[in-house]
Amino acid sequence: MNRFVYLLEEAQGLDRDTLGGKGFGLVEMRRAGLPVPPALVVTTEACRAYLREGHLPEGLWEEVKTKVRALEALSGKAFGGGAGGRPPLLVSVRSGAPVSMPGMMDTILNLGLNLEGVEALARATGNPRFAWDTFRRLIQMYGEVVLGVEGQAFEALLEEVKARRGVSDAGLAPEELEEVAFRSLRLLEERGLVFPMDPWAQLRGAVEAVFRSWNNPRARVYRRIYGIPEDLGTAVVIQAMVFGNLGEDSGTGVGFTRNPATGEKGLYGEYLQNAQGEDVVAGLRTPEPLERLRGFAPRLYQELEATAALLERHFREMQDFEFTVERGRLYLLQTRSGKRTAQAAVRIAVEMAEEGLITKEEAVLRVDPNALPALLRPAVNPDAAPRPLIRGLPASPGAAVGRAVFSNEMAERYASQGVPVILVRPETTPEDITGMYLSQGILTARGGLTSHAAVVARGLGVPAVVGAEGLRVEKDRAWIGEKEIQEGELLTIDGSTGAVYLGEVPLLEGAGMEILDRLLAWAEPYRTLGVRANADTPEEAQRARAFGAEGIGLCRTEHMFFKEERLPWVRKLLFGTPEEEDEALERLFQYQKEDFKGILRAMDGLPVTVRLLDAPLHEFLPPVASPAGEDQEAMAEEGRGRDLKEVNPMLGFRGIRLLLLRPKVFQMQLRALLEAAQALKGEGLDPRPEVMLPLVSDPKEVERAKDMAQALFAEFFPIPFGTMIETPRAALLAEKIAPLVDFFSFGTNDLTQMTFGLSRDDAGKFLPRYLEERLLSSDPTETLDLEGVGRLVRLAAEEGRRANPGLKLGLCGEHGGEARSVLFGSAFLDYTSASLYRLLTARLAAAQAGLRRVRA
Amino acid sequence: MNRFVYLLEEAQGLDRDTLGGKGFGLVEMRRAGLPVPPALVVTTEACRAYLREGHLPEGLWEEVKTKVRALEALSGKAFGGGAGGRPPLLVSVRSGAPVSMPGMMDTILNLGLNLEGVEALARATGNPRFAWDTFRRLIQMYGEVVLGVEGQAFEALLEEVKARRGVSDAGLAPEELEEVAFRSLRLLEERGLVFPMDPWAQLRGAVEAVFRSWNNPRARVYRRIYGIPEDLGTAVVIQAMVFGNLGEDSGTGVGFTRNPATGEKGLYGEYLQNAQGEDVVAGLRTPEPLERLRGFAPRLYQELEATAALLERHFREMQDFEFTVERGRLYLLQTRSGKRTAQAAVRIAVEMAEEGLITKEEAVLRVDPNALPALLRPAVNPDAAPRPLIRGLPASPGAAVGRAVFSNEMAERYASQGVPVILVRPETTPEDITGMYLSQGILTARGGLTSHAAVVARGLGVPAVVGAEGLRVEKDRAWIGEKEIQEGELLTIDGSTGAVYLGEVPLLEGAGMEILDRLLAWAEPYRTLGVRANADTPEEAQRARAFGAEGIGLCRTEHMFFKEERLPWVRKLLFGTPEEEDEALERLFQYQKEDFKGILRAMDGLPVTVRLLDAPLHEFLPPVASPAGEDQEAMAEEGRGRDLKEVNPMLGFRGIRLLLLRPKVFQMQLRALLEAAQALKGEGLDPRPEVMLPLVSDPKEVERAKDMAQALFAEFFPIPFGTMIETPRAALLAEKIAPLVDFFSFGTNDLTQMTFGLSRDDAGKFLPRYLEERLLSSDPTETLDLEGVGRLVRLAAEEGRRANPGLKLGLCGEHGGEARSVLFGSAFLDYTSASLYRLLTARLAAAQAGLRRVRA
Repeated sequence: MNRFVYLLEEAQGLDRDTLGGKGFGLVEMRRAGLPVPPALVVTTEACRAYLREGHLPEGLWEEVKTKVRALEALSGKAFGGGAGGRPPLLVSVRSGAPVSMPGMMDTILNLGLNLEGVEALARATGNPRFAWDTFRRLIQMYGEVVLGVEGQAFEALLEEVKARRGVSDAGLAPEELEEVAFRSLRLLEERGLVFPMDPWAQLRGAVEAVFRSWNNPRARVYRRIYGIPEDLGTAVVIQAMVFGNLGEDSGTGVGFTRNPATGEKGLYGEYLQNAQGEDVVAGLRTPEPLERLRGFAPRLYQELEATAALLERHFREMQDFEFTVERGRLYLLQTRSGKRTAQAAVRIAVEMAEEGLITKEEAVLRVDPNALPALLRPAVNPDAAPRPLIRGLPASPGAAVGRAVFSNEMAERYASQGVPVILVRPETTPEDITGMYLSQGILTARGGLTSHAAVVARGLGVPAVVGAEGLRVEKDRAWIGEKEIQEGELLTIDGSTGAVYLGEVPLLEGAGMEILDRLLAWAEPYRTLGVRANADTPEEAQRARAFGAEGIGLCRTEHMFFKEERLPWVRKLLFGTPEEEDEALERLFQYQKEDFKGILRAMDGLPVTVRLLDAPLHEFLPPVASPAGEDQEAMAEEGRGRDLKEVNPMLGFRGIRLLLLRPKVFQMQLRALLEAAQALKGEGLDPRPEVMLPLVSDPKEVERAKDMAQALFAEFFPIPFGTMIETPRAALLAEKIAPLVDFFSFGTNDLTQMTFGLSRDDAGKFLPRYLEERLLSSDPTETLDLEGVGRLVRLAAEEGRRANPGLKLGLCGEHGGEARSVLFGSAFLDYTSASLYRLLTARLAAAQAGLRRVRA
Repeated sequence: MNRFVYLLEEAQGLDRDTLGGKGFGLVEMRRAGLPVPPALVVTTEACRAYLREGHLPEGLWEEVKTKVRALEALSGKAFGGGAGGRPPLLVSVRSGAPVSMPGMMDTILNLGLNLEGVEALARATGNPRFAWDTFRRLIQMYGEVVLGVEGQAFEALLEEVKARRGVSDAGLAPEELEEVAFRSLRLLEERGLVFPMDPWAQLRGAVEAVFRSWNNPRARVYRRIYGIPEDLGTAVVIQAMVFGNLGEDSGTGVGFTRNPATGEKGLYGEYLQNAQGEDVVAGLRTPEPLERLRGFAPRLYQELEATAALLERHFREMQDFEFTVERGRLYLLQTRSGKRTAQAAVRIAVEMAEEGLITKEEAVLRVDPNALPALLRPAVNPDAAPRPLIRGLPASPGAAVGRAVFSNEMAERYASQGVPVILVRPETTPEDITGMYLSQGILTARGGLTSHAAVVARGLGVPAVVGAEGLRVEKDRAWIGEKEIQEGELLTIDGSTGAVYLGEVPLLEGAGMEILDRLLAWAEPYRTLGVRANADTPEEAQRARAFGAEGIGLCRTEHMFFKEERLPWVRKLLFGTPEEEDEALERLFQYQKEDFKGILRAMDGLPVTVRLLDAPLHEFLPPVASPAGEDQEAMAEEGRGRDLKEVNPMLGFRGIRLLLLRPKVFQMQLRALLEAAQALKGEGLDPRPEVMLPLVSDPKEVERAKDMAQALFAEFFPIPFGTMIETPRAALLAEKIAPLVDFFSFGTNDLTQMTFGLSRDDAGKFLPRYLEERLLSSDPTETLDLEGVGRLVRLAAEEGRRANPGLKLGLCGEHGGEARSVLFGSAFLDYTSASLYRLLTARLAAAQAGLRRVRA
């Protein structure tokens, strides 16, 4: 009766949690009829009991012994040497947790050998060299894993003998390997340690060592980093050894059922002749592409192709498998779902559905929506990438190669000659727009994922890495540690991973929209949540519509102000004399009206939500010494702008506060919007503007603003009137605000910052370490924090709807295009609004949410 | 049957809402047997109907007429002239809302006169000059109030006649006043207006004008500012005129039943002989102290004293009353509760209770706890104060006079000679502590009520005015507008009102604790809420205990770091090399341990809650060019402190974030606390330290900190472990945090800032205008915002207690000493913690809350 230990043939129906990933894969492969060496699995339950009680649980060892006897029978070999003339049964003892933790825990191979066994193995294989090499390896591995001796000590012995003989590993004779084995045994003795010659003692020691390795420091760190529960425990797989190092007709390899970089269908992988898996890992010899087998081992290649097909049919997923060929015979040792690039993920899902391997719905659910933004852009080829020089935050996906430039002027100089550039800045401000626009990529030393650089880069669709700690940017050069980066130096940045490389790194082209369109076509019928775009210009509006946006959920009018030719007028408006103010109002009115016309035209028939001015005042101040003439010093002398510097601009004089106290700005913006809409109506179009208030924290603010809007609504026509919910207080008072408006739009960027008391611009100082140390399970500026911020959003949604059943609810801000956040919102929102390059993510995530509901 | 109009004798039992404040006072005075001229009251209900319907409501006019007939009977005079030989009945028509709105609405006197009436009046009084003067005044007032003519036009006529005759008002003969009257009538005619000679038409016009004046612009603004509902409406009092201007035996005056400045018992007020109330208002003649009547009109003085006593017995409150003496006969025209200073309020309440006029419980409830801090400090004498030069925020109560100084050095120079100084700074930093300590008062140009200057000043007990917009401070001088303030110039500041005066303004000494102790002795038995103090030094702890603190609820360890000799060590700790860090840890450890010993000793037997380091890092940086040697430039060159400048320091790298990532700081502080406690235990004392975490936003932070504390708790002894709830997220996740801690302390300063998205340091740019325009009904940094922040506090309290029934709940921060906030908290908190000078407020407010619960 099994309690803790199962042969593969007995374990069908047990789950991955019990068998561990490796054990589960072996059981399934055997069930699928694939050649798997006989094995038994000690369950995770046994590991948990061991760790709890500090010793092997009652009865476990007896079970193991019984099952090893069964292995003997299945393999026709004898554990513990050549008793009865049978060849010795050697086993591997491997860890295998329910969740993959590659390399974190211990493994011992070749277990079961002793002095008698070596002789028997030499006889059985006719290869004494192999037998002594195998024994030597066992002593070393056991010494390291079970007895805790540093591997270096054993390597030194081997090196000594090699040096004496002046040969490489392969050149060593059996006698020399025997010498190494004996000296290894003596090494242990000298340290007061004993290598057990009893194979059962070896096995028991190995099983306990694997159990203990669950709690080794690197495994604990790994679990903390990846959020893997501490109490899962690991299973132990004890499997009859097969040997890839028995000659030219043996070998070892790794296969993928499809290309993990491109997703292309077909066998892909590597093979190393006459070797054990460990030799590949050690990097002593370079494996060859599997493709080569076609030529010199066509039968094996065919067999591998058939195996790949069978694995995919069985697991209905792309598999990454390990195999060994022993004297021409193929054995499968492991299989698991293969890691893949974003491109590959989509292509595999779509093609598997088209091949009938999975359903279209499954294909839709298999693609991680968050990976889509990277999909359309070039990516760093993971196979060809060197170690990055430095890492920052992945602010705008895609990779770019270009010459380092440090100013607008430099960017213009290179761009005019058609040379691609990467703009490198300490951080960006509206003054840098020209340079950002001309660049293939943007790199900054400071700022978070929603800093100016990040937001503008995503808007422009330019890859960007921001907040690269360790990067120091000066006027015309930069430093990364000791390394100086000069103007014109080639850089590669990867905005999907945050990596920054020196020189040109090979890139993979982005996928076309074509394959994605097929996936989205299957997905969209399940989507009930509306998807709008964040877009601030007519061009962005056009692109948003092309990407399937059903309107604009957030048009940030302050971004319309951040244009070089407009900034002087904005400054006059905000800080000028009354005459300057009036002139500026007129100029900006014309600019905004034209912008609004373009945007409304691009979104004809679809809603366009315009958020009135919301930026801290001092963002509009010129830099302290601006080359453009007027600078802060001059303004300060004149006494204007003097008091504009704020201690906490995030929580300062902006948004509705500014609009209520500077009503002319409010009137100008709303009039520009209404006149623009009226003009388009005159052309027979169907403009659908909506107006939205920023930074509201009290219903009185909304009331006052609504009063201010009434005259213009009367002069033109009323349009939907709404408010951002982006302060915690607005959420808490939703019930009182809701009756005053037509819609709420949750501004989860600011709401997150205020709820946590965490400034996105400053979080670089602690957030990375918080994530590393798992003080937070995910970055709340990226993925909506459901417990805190999400609770406020839900509360406001429920209380708002109760007070105004017709209230429309939307979400804008970065979370509006993040999959988990969209999933959360799809349960109760009318629409989400995402930045341009996250639109596809939002569409797919919303569709997945709908699909899950249908299936539930 | 009365619907809208009541004679005083009919109106008993009607309330202030119906009769208005003035009408109600008259009814009550009549009931108390005081001499009140006959009058009728048109109710607020009539006004509301008029404003709703746009005309006098059905039946109202008939009621008025009937009641005026009754007035005729009561007064023995005839309305509309001398019919039947009776003297003409003149009436005043006055507004009187349920809530006092002094001067906001209209009044007409002398109504009922026409050409015939003038003659009759002259006959009846034997004084034609008086009769024509009265008529002239009526025409002018009617012209202004009912017909909307500017008063200036009438004044010009009068001036012209006076100039021609070369006399003052009093010198005009009856014929000349007659001329003015006729020319006034012609003036109206020329503008197409008519002064009705029919007294009934006059009355009707006046009543409607008073009704309409409810909605005049200045009344609307006043109501918005003081939060008075728009729909109350005003009552109208129509009262038989009495005349104080009929000769030397006539006059008019105002009396207080006790001294409104000091509270001293006894008649207090002013009297003007041979005058109408309007003459006092016009300021043409200066009234004399009532006291003088003792000499030349002892009978009248006695009568007024008896009146005052009667009023107090009747109203059980200090009264402010208006009276007129007509030919030796006293008439009372108005009474209301008198405004008073904080000092007076306490003295009056206490003495009235001791006199048996009111109960001790009533006395307790009558004192505004928020007024107490001002009570113990000198105050600007309101009678003697000139117009302030400028106003800032009242940051620390009390008034101070001293010489302007602009630096520590200047303060030391003056102080060494015993000269009192006012420290004037743009804003203060820890570097300014010496100067602040040596000053009698502190004045800053920037900063809010919880800025460094404000917090430190309250801690030191020094009056302070902060954030005085319009003040510009340079190195060795300051400017207020065009006025230059030089070193040594005398200034007076009033930290209770925010006023800043040039030169020395007379001050009133603060009350002693003695009278307050009497009040608190009656109050305290009703208090159930604990009251602790915010205190950071042994001296503050001692004073807190003397003021009745039952422990320390907030000991801010960062304030212990802000001492001149310690700052270099703090800088080494935070920004230095590892060796410097270790040395600094040791030094600061010794400092903190000594401080903790002193504090725990002062609070022997009472809890002391120590909050671990919580200040934005850059607060510890030296100023850009510090005279003290090491400056930021130098540090920046060395690459230390380089990245410390934060965009939003409020939301940055501080509090628990810093403590978790710099565990040595955490360990040092906790060890210092535990060693200090152990040392005192060795002395046989009973130290009760508690440790508190700042800026928590997630339970994992608390868990990690608790892990870090365990070793020290094991080495010494465990102490209560708690957390601030000062981010919205901590409140929202209270249920998960509560089981990990022994107590929550609501840090409503930060919680308010984050919930509103409002930085206290920057709110000066919009908060004053928000309050002025009633976009907020009170300053949320002063009075806890119950709807938003209060909702979070309640939610966290309830969910926290549910998850951990033993959880102790406290409130610290500025609201902990604000009466309305304490009232709110007393329903569910265990204790509140207030700054030193707000301790009495907290104690009284908590007692009032308990008393109200007992009475409810």
